[in-house]
Amino acid sequence: MPQEHRSTPDPFDWIDEHAELRRRAGLVRSLRPRPADSDLLDLAGNDYLGLARHPEVAAAASAAARRWGAGSTGSRLVTGTTELHTELEAELADFCGFEAALVFSSGYAANLAAVTALTDRGTLLVSDAANHASLIDGCRLSRAETAVVPHADPGAVRKVLDGFAGRAVAVTDTVFSVDGDAAPLAFLAAVCRGHGAALLADDAHGLGVLGDGGRGALHAAGLAGDPDVVATVTLSKSLGSQGGAVLGPARVIDHLVNTARTFVFDTGLAPAAAGAALAALRLLRSEPGRADRVREVATGLYERLAGAGLDVTRPDAAVVSVRAPSAEAAVRWAADCRGASLAAGCFRPPSVPDGISRLRLTARADLTEAELDAAAATIARTAPPVQPDL
Amino acid sequence: MPQEHRSTPDPFDWIDEHAELRRRAGLVRSLRPRPADSDLLDLAGNDYLGLARHPEVAAAASAAARRWGAGSTGSRLVTGTTELHTELEAELADFCGFEAALVFSSGYAANLAAVTALTDRGTLLVSDAANHASLIDGCRLSRAETAVVPHADPGAVRKVLDGFAGRAVAVTDTVFSVDGDAAPLAFLAAVCRGHGAALLADDAHGLGVLGDGGRGALHAAGLAGDPDVVATVTLSKSLGSQGGAVLGPARVIDHLVNTARTFVFDTGLAPAAAGAALAALRLLRSEPGRADRVREVATGLYERLAGAGLDVTRPDAAVVSVRAPSAEAAVRWAADCRGASLAAGCFRPPSVPDGISRLRLTARADLTEAELDAAAATIARTAPPVQPDL
Repeated sequence: MPQEHRSTPDPFDWIDEHAELRRRAGLVRSLRPRPADSDLLDLAGNDYLGLARHPEVAAAASAAARRWGAGSTGSRLVTGTTELHTELEAELADFCGFEAALVFSSGYAANLAAVTALTDRGTLLVSDAANHASLIDGCRLSRAETAVVPHADPGAVRKVLDGFAGRAVAVTDTVFSVDGDAAPLAFLAAVCRGHGAALLADDAHGLGVLGDGGRGALHAAGLAGDPDVVATVTLSKSLGSQGGAVLGPARVIDHLVNTARTFVFDTGLAPAAAGAALAALRLLRSEPGRADRVREVATGLYERLAGAGLDVTRPDAAVVSVRAPSAEAAVRWAADCRGASLAAGCFRPPSVPDGISRLRLTARADLTEAELDAAAATIARTAPPVQPDL
Repeated sequence: MPQEHRSTPDPFDWIDEHAELRRRAGLVRSLRPRPADSDLLDLAGNDYLGLARHPEVAAAASAAARRWGAGSTGSRLVTGTTELHTELEAELADFCGFEAALVFSSGYAANLAAVTALTDRGTLLVSDAANHASLIDGCRLSRAETAVVPHADPGAVRKVLDGFAGRAVAVTDTVFSVDGDAAPLAFLAAVCRGHGAALLADDAHGLGVLGDGGRGALHAAGLAGDPDVVATVTLSKSLGSQGGAVLGPARVIDHLVNTARTFVFDTGLAPAAAGAALAALRLLRSEPGRADRVREVATGLYERLAGAGLDVTRPDAAVVSVRAPSAEAAVRWAADCRGASLAAGCFRPPSVPDGISRLRLTARADLTEAELDAAAATIARTAPPVQPDL
């Protein structure tokens, strides 16, 4: 077959055009490397309990790297499972009230695994419109049909399930990352049970924050350990480390060990991350007040911002979201906060399901009332003059 | 709409049926947690250079956790980028000969990112039939059309590209994980260039093993840094840590920062893993003989096993693959090796692209000739009586 010898175009020229479109829309993202020590008051990270830099957690990471090595050296099915992973899995399952747990290198990988391994070509996935990207990608990767339903609407889930006789799985975040609102889990679970459908819920933002002593949103809803409920969590938010996990009936976990591609074909979580998460979990167990405190901080932040007249959502967990009139305004607002030594998350399209840009603020259990006062004053002082008309 | 109140079936009953089918087919997988210290001679892990437990690497992981915290606390775009990540990215790009690099929480995430961000609905992906699961999942996740071509066949890639006028990306492992054979990269790149297509190559098993001082398969092929070439690597194999990276032109990396979902919506790599990978990279740079040694070990293992009459593939890098007559025989073989204090990988369907079960052995730079003698003797002595008729 003749090979064409045309002058070859650069295959990445289109990238420059996309970059230009982003620039014009005010949607350019860039990395801002942070130093080890910073004067910024951090209301942007997901270290909800302030454990990422807790001396015991850092020491556990450090000790695990020295004892077990810097990496796990292979797939969990080959050389990548250490006794440390097993210990973490047992304690995590026990704490959250599930029969078994399986640890992954990230929450993203855990969600891809859970969605794909629990479905096949005949399954119906019913997915909340505001679900996290990793659940959406799980739905895309699965061979199942996906029905996207309006946000936090169990009635819509029921309607979809009413028209379907086969295997079905409803998929939802327990706490939605952008606005910090909670899913109606009890209602959702009842709808699922009425139809013999499974419930898969991502408790990334619930673990450590909601439920008795931070046992999570599913525990709070009385659903933890139920035979038709599977949860995913991250080790990288309240537990201050890295990684994710799936929690559920032992047979589901065993099924994931055998079939989940992001488990079978990924290198196991590094020992340092497993050790840190285990230490954080033990701290949370021994100091359950941390979970109460982070919710108190979130409420305190909300009240201060609402009192200042900002368009802020009432938080169901640790995330407090403040709407901005535009993407550009949100960027400027976050920059002004940063200029006043406050780090605030700036969420813009395509990271917001409704296209509305926001400051995304996160509560942390170790913030003081004085820090909250200062933070709220800074956010209010730097707020854009025009609030969105919604 | 009336809700059905039939007696609700357990939505996971089908899992037991799948488990029973696996059991009958001899394809059950289970986790075997390893202790921190073991007498097993490890020919199963991917710690090719023996750096995962190198004192300097473990110390770097340990120090990073103490200095930067146990976790990165957020998305790389929010609080998850530290100066340590940036330092690792700069040194990794420089070492491998690319303009820029971007670090992910896993190689799996890096591959999903690269494939999906470099394609859209109109793109044609041309994917080697033996590619790693993460590249295959990347193709599935992307909105592009995927043409799967026969393994290691640039002529087949050319044929597909000949019939296509739009944007195209050829996707391949540089070294295939199961059989350890290398892709014909120079030929592939020439075919891609003839058609203005990009080449995306996963160098997970090439970094640290192939090329000048372990700079990888793309460096060895003279393709590193070319404007139409993008590579992915892992930090969890030769670099003994956890994580992955994409290497390529700066505009490609910038595009990933802005659009890759497994970058934007994932928590950044833990500082301990970034610090360990950086320390391992510096060791590799200062001790380039490690890369020579691991290839020497692989060849030595191959020669011993071939000399013993086993059906072994000649290794192009660090992986030495020995075929077994059946899945059951492979499991028994690996178990017999383990009984003789040797850890060997056992790869069975669905982890083998051709359905043939194997022992997968990995060379490590720190293995001695005496250990190789002992390993080969054990493998030969425990070999199943009947070799496959292929």
